[in-house]
Amino acid sequence: MKKSLTYKILQKHLLSGELKEGCEIGIKIDQTLTQDSTGTMVYLQLEAMGISKLKTDLSVAYIDHNTLQTGFENADDHEFIKSVAEKYGIVYSKPGNGICHQLHLENFAKPGNTLLGSDSHTPTCGGIGMLSIGTGGLDVAIAMASGEYYLKTPKVLNIHLEGHLKPWVSAKDVILYILKQLSVKGGVGKVIEYTGTGIKSLSVTDRGTIANMGAELGATSSIFPSDEITYEYLKSQGRENDWLPLHADNNATYDEVINIDLCKILPMAAKPHSPDNVDSIRNLTGIKVDQVLIGSCTNSSYKDLMKAASILKDKQVHPDVSLGISPGSSNILKMLADNGALGDLIAAGARILECSCGPCIGMGQSPQTNGVSLRTFNRNFCGRSGTNSADVYLVSPETAAISAVSGFINTPENVGEAVDIQEPQAYFKGNSYFILPSNKSSIIKMGPNIKPFPINTPIKSLVEGKLILKAGNNITTDDIMPSNAKLLPYRSNIPYLSQFCFNTIDADFWNRCVENEGGFVIGGENYGQGSSREHAALVPLHLGIKAIISKSFARIHKANLINSGILPLEFENEQDYDLLHEGDDLIIDNLIQSLKENTSVLLRDTTAGVDIKLKFTGSERDVAILLMGGYLNYTKASLEGLNNE
Amino acid sequence: MKKSLTYKILQKHLLSGELKEGCEIGIKIDQTLTQDSTGTMVYLQLEAMGISKLKTDLSVAYIDHNTLQTGFENADDHEFIKSVAEKYGIVYSKPGNGICHQLHLENFAKPGNTLLGSDSHTPTCGGIGMLSIGTGGLDVAIAMASGEYYLKTPKVLNIHLEGHLKPWVSAKDVILYILKQLSVKGGVGKVIEYTGTGIKSLSVTDRGTIANMGAELGATSSIFPSDEITYEYLKSQGRENDWLPLHADNNATYDEVINIDLCKILPMAAKPHSPDNVDSIRNLTGIKVDQVLIGSCTNSSYKDLMKAASILKDKQVHPDVSLGISPGSSNILKMLADNGALGDLIAAGARILECSCGPCIGMGQSPQTNGVSLRTFNRNFCGRSGTNSADVYLVSPETAAISAVSGFINTPENVGEAVDIQEPQAYFKGNSYFILPSNKSSIIKMGPNIKPFPINTPIKSLVEGKLILKAGNNITTDDIMPSNAKLLPYRSNIPYLSQFCFNTIDADFWNRCVENEGGFVIGGENYGQGSSREHAALVPLHLGIKAIISKSFARIHKANLINSGILPLEFENEQDYDLLHEGDDLIIDNLIQSLKENTSVLLRDTTAGVDIKLKFTGSERDVAILLMGGYLNYTKASLEGLNNE
Repeated sequence: MKKSLTYKILQKHLLSGELKEGCEIGIKIDQTLTQDSTGTMVYLQLEAMGISKLKTDLSVAYIDHNTLQTGFENADDHEFIKSVAEKYGIVYSKPGNGICHQLHLENFAKPGNTLLGSDSHTPTCGGIGMLSIGTGGLDVAIAMASGEYYLKTPKVLNIHLEGHLKPWVSAKDVILYILKQLSVKGGVGKVIEYTGTGIKSLSVTDRGTIANMGAELGATSSIFPSDEITYEYLKSQGRENDWLPLHADNNATYDEVINIDLCKILPMAAKPHSPDNVDSIRNLTGIKVDQVLIGSCTNSSYKDLMKAASILKDKQVHPDVSLGISPGSSNILKMLADNGALGDLIAAGARILECSCGPCIGMGQSPQTNGVSLRTFNRNFCGRSGTNSADVYLVSPETAAISAVSGFINTPENVGEAVDIQEPQAYFKGNSYFILPSNKSSIIKMGPNIKPFPINTPIKSLVEGKLILKAGNNITTDDIMPSNAKLLPYRSNIPYLSQFCFNTIDADFWNRCVENEGGFVIGGENYGQGSSREHAALVPLHLGIKAIISKSFARIHKANLINSGILPLEFENEQDYDLLHEGDDLIIDNLIQSLKENTSVLLRDTTAGVDIKLKFTGSERDVAILLMGGYLNYTKASLEGLNNE
Repeated sequence: MKKSLTYKILQKHLLSGELKEGCEIGIKIDQTLTQDSTGTMVYLQLEAMGISKLKTDLSVAYIDHNTLQTGFENADDHEFIKSVAEKYGIVYSKPGNGICHQLHLENFAKPGNTLLGSDSHTPTCGGIGMLSIGTGGLDVAIAMASGEYYLKTPKVLNIHLEGHLKPWVSAKDVILYILKQLSVKGGVGKVIEYTGTGIKSLSVTDRGTIANMGAELGATSSIFPSDEITYEYLKSQGRENDWLPLHADNNATYDEVINIDLCKILPMAAKPHSPDNVDSIRNLTGIKVDQVLIGSCTNSSYKDLMKAASILKDKQVHPDVSLGISPGSSNILKMLADNGALGDLIAAGARILECSCGPCIGMGQSPQTNGVSLRTFNRNFCGRSGTNSADVYLVSPETAAISAVSGFINTPENVGEAVDIQEPQAYFKGNSYFILPSNKSSIIKMGPNIKPFPINTPIKSLVEGKLILKAGNNITTDDIMPSNAKLLPYRSNIPYLSQFCFNTIDADFWNRCVENEGGFVIGGENYGQGSSREHAALVPLHLGIKAIISKSFARIHKANLINSGILPLEFENEQDYDLLHEGDDLIIDNLIQSLKENTSVLLRDTTAGVDIKLKFTGSERDVAILLMGGYLNYTKASLEGLNNE
């Protein structure tokens, strides 16, 4: 069989299982990355595993999310992560250095290697031919401790690019065009592999932009070949020794193939409130704009910012527009300062924000009420900007820049002759923000907001408790554990966060959990959809929730529940949902036997006096994890050689 | 009598009263400035006065405080202020342009003119020979509407500077040295006038630094002569036509004179937690530093940042230190970008923050728990950084920069030969962030967080109510109305803020006010000390507080109470404080007659069955203001020609 690049890399890293679509495989992880919003929990989990040395070639801890620091909590988190990095030999990236994905691409990403990151946009490094997967924090902690990661063998979708982009059309427009075709579910369970002559006109950072927003397609990862363009990029970063030529076999086998002619793509925008609600800019021209933001892990490369600067040079930001620039890395900011482009941006009236994720994750720059905000970011979910009533459009840097000058959505095609911004021959390579571990200290610094990580106990055969909450269909992880600029600083404080669990749909949830020492939650269809947020499982664990019973689960949340040692059970008969009532006393007996023998789990509602049949649909490995009280306990035992299965 | 410069400017602007220490005078205000945290309220008040045209030569509305924007409220405030600016012909400075005082010095300040600003550091423009006074927002609104401002004629304290500063000693060290001598009360009721040959070695921005921190001395203002150095600065800003030579008469009469030999001053620091807790850097060397911040209206001039950059060039920020730079103006940032200094700062590992007040007002960059933070700012009150346990030291940019490299408090004297940074011949003069009013629109944009300004009604002869709160001595305006990064965005929403009134000392205060429709508050000595925060009067007004009865009042808060139409009364016999109890029913009768005739105000506690004598110690004008229900009503009536007294 002629192999795809994806399968080649998976094969090279295969530890267990069979490379066959749907089969669970274990793969070797070469590198990990964390950011600070998920990182504090990752490193608490790593500490809890009691290991002495990492199994990865390289692990990097970036600080890029909580950089506003409106209280002591963020700086304490940074210090905690820094101290863990020092203890375990992890590279630490100081706040101000920039955004993890941009920095990783510049400094560490290697063609043919595997990368696991506790951030959904980790696949950005697919732009350099690295198999890069975003996942929950516990998986990353375990990958550091064991060098392993388990996943179902993905399908491989080949997107074959031909032709050249028109002037003023760029990588962002390509991925928006793809999102329009495939929708936000189009990549689920797949790695998207880009091939074709069209990729020769895309720089590594262009490819990074496209791979980055594979996350918005729901893809496991996206990957480009490693070619001479990859070589030139690595050379410009002083890393030509990291290069390796890599591509799929000729006539490789793919599960699906899509052909795209680049020259047919026009400047695009994702309209409110979904990245796949895509339209041509030409159809949107004239909409009045209040705010424009350029940056994020999607579009803050040197080329992206230079294109914006070249459009804004000798022009003025419209009086009614607030234009913010958050550069992707300190080295790029230094280059822009030195070559005059930053001066041009300032002279035009741009607000120069710190090198960080910033407004992309709702940390600052919330637009005005009913404001229209054009952003070069990757997500425009309702409310993510911090302003529920705002309309956010996702666009290319070129479209953002020209619209900032016009004061309305405008197409860069109106600017005139396109300036050809080339990748620099040599990037500035500063090293003031990276702290390489010296292994001198093993003292972990834990500020008062960093609370111990909740660890579950092995499940028991008899599970009793109240039905604390009966929720409806399509409960999101945002419903379970809200996230915003006010709660994000508390990601390392599960007890504090727990007060806001289910807060938006039931303000009394926390009280009832405390009063009853936890219990059961019932959901309808598609329980736990949305963000992969691990905290939507960790917080219920802290509150003593023993099982979630629903009509169906979203995939990642179900995995997070199992990882946390919380039982995800489904109704054998969906109508039984109607028999249960909030406040009822529930009992499950013979649970362990049922799980081991893969038979129905029997639930008795002693208040209503009814028996209900439930099912557990996980793998044998999932059962083993639940029997240990979660993935952390399971891994710890496994590492200690106690788990000899 | 030979005149001080202060008296010359006051005389030229005198509208009413006699220039005699302690006498109330009315002066003409030429210019006003507001920032956004006080500005929303100022412009609500201006709107409430119903005028059509401003009486000032120039009014500028700056956006520099709430620029983090973690919710829609800030951007809505910016839009509101922008729309008022457009309606009334006020110059609007967009967020990202920089800090009001730095910008005003660069762009608008004029020797010999008067400036009233709704920010306590307005006296910065005294560095250019302008009489600049910081005051409550309502005074600024009234100055815009009427061109007038009333104050007691200040004493004039002459600080006579001789000699030259040693290498590595700068303006910040001079004002810290003065704070050490005079304390934070040393300037109360005074204008500080600087003279002597020593000022020839100080640039206009150096003088601005010294005048700025006159606020920390409690001074009404600080002022320097306008000389050839002033001329050169104005010329470098393209404003030489604004120059006017100005100085005190030879042998002018001063209330006090202090002589300082500049060459005796060493690098200094204000230790935690007061700007006058000053010591020599030599005595502090070696203290480990976690954070260094360079910027603020005190120390973010071109020279200040260039000095820091020259020290940091080719060096690295210590791995354990977070160094943040918040430049004072976009034009300075542009100059630093273009001349390579910004590149040097980035290469050294600095976090480049937006041009704004930022961390100086606790908006971001809160240090870690128990962190040591060196700041070039003007205040180091406990908790102001956002981290209650942090130790904040106030230092010069030179001391800050070298300490950032060392990782401990270090004196710049150790750096080597001092680099002589000169004022630039010509400043970059961009105009993309200033919006000049075109008077095209009179539509006021009010977002949902902007609530109507509370307006009082004329006081009545019979005042009845419950004693809602009996507080102790030294109640601060921070006790009355807390301010922090979480509450600052709500400065234009008095109903929301009211929920936090007295929250730190009595969590039930709001409930009792609502239940009883307001009432009385009793305080001990020095009620209302601390920040000049107008909201500490506006919020009680909203809650229906009719009178504050205390042993004594802090001066500015007492004025704010009168301005809001709330009666500030003092015990004739301080022991009577003990006779009153929370929850008692209180009645005052014949109030108007007592105020008009300046006789005792009789308070009956009907619950305790006791009569207590109180006194009102304001001026006749204060009585007139209370009779109208506050200064806004008074001015409105006066402008409408209804008030013919």
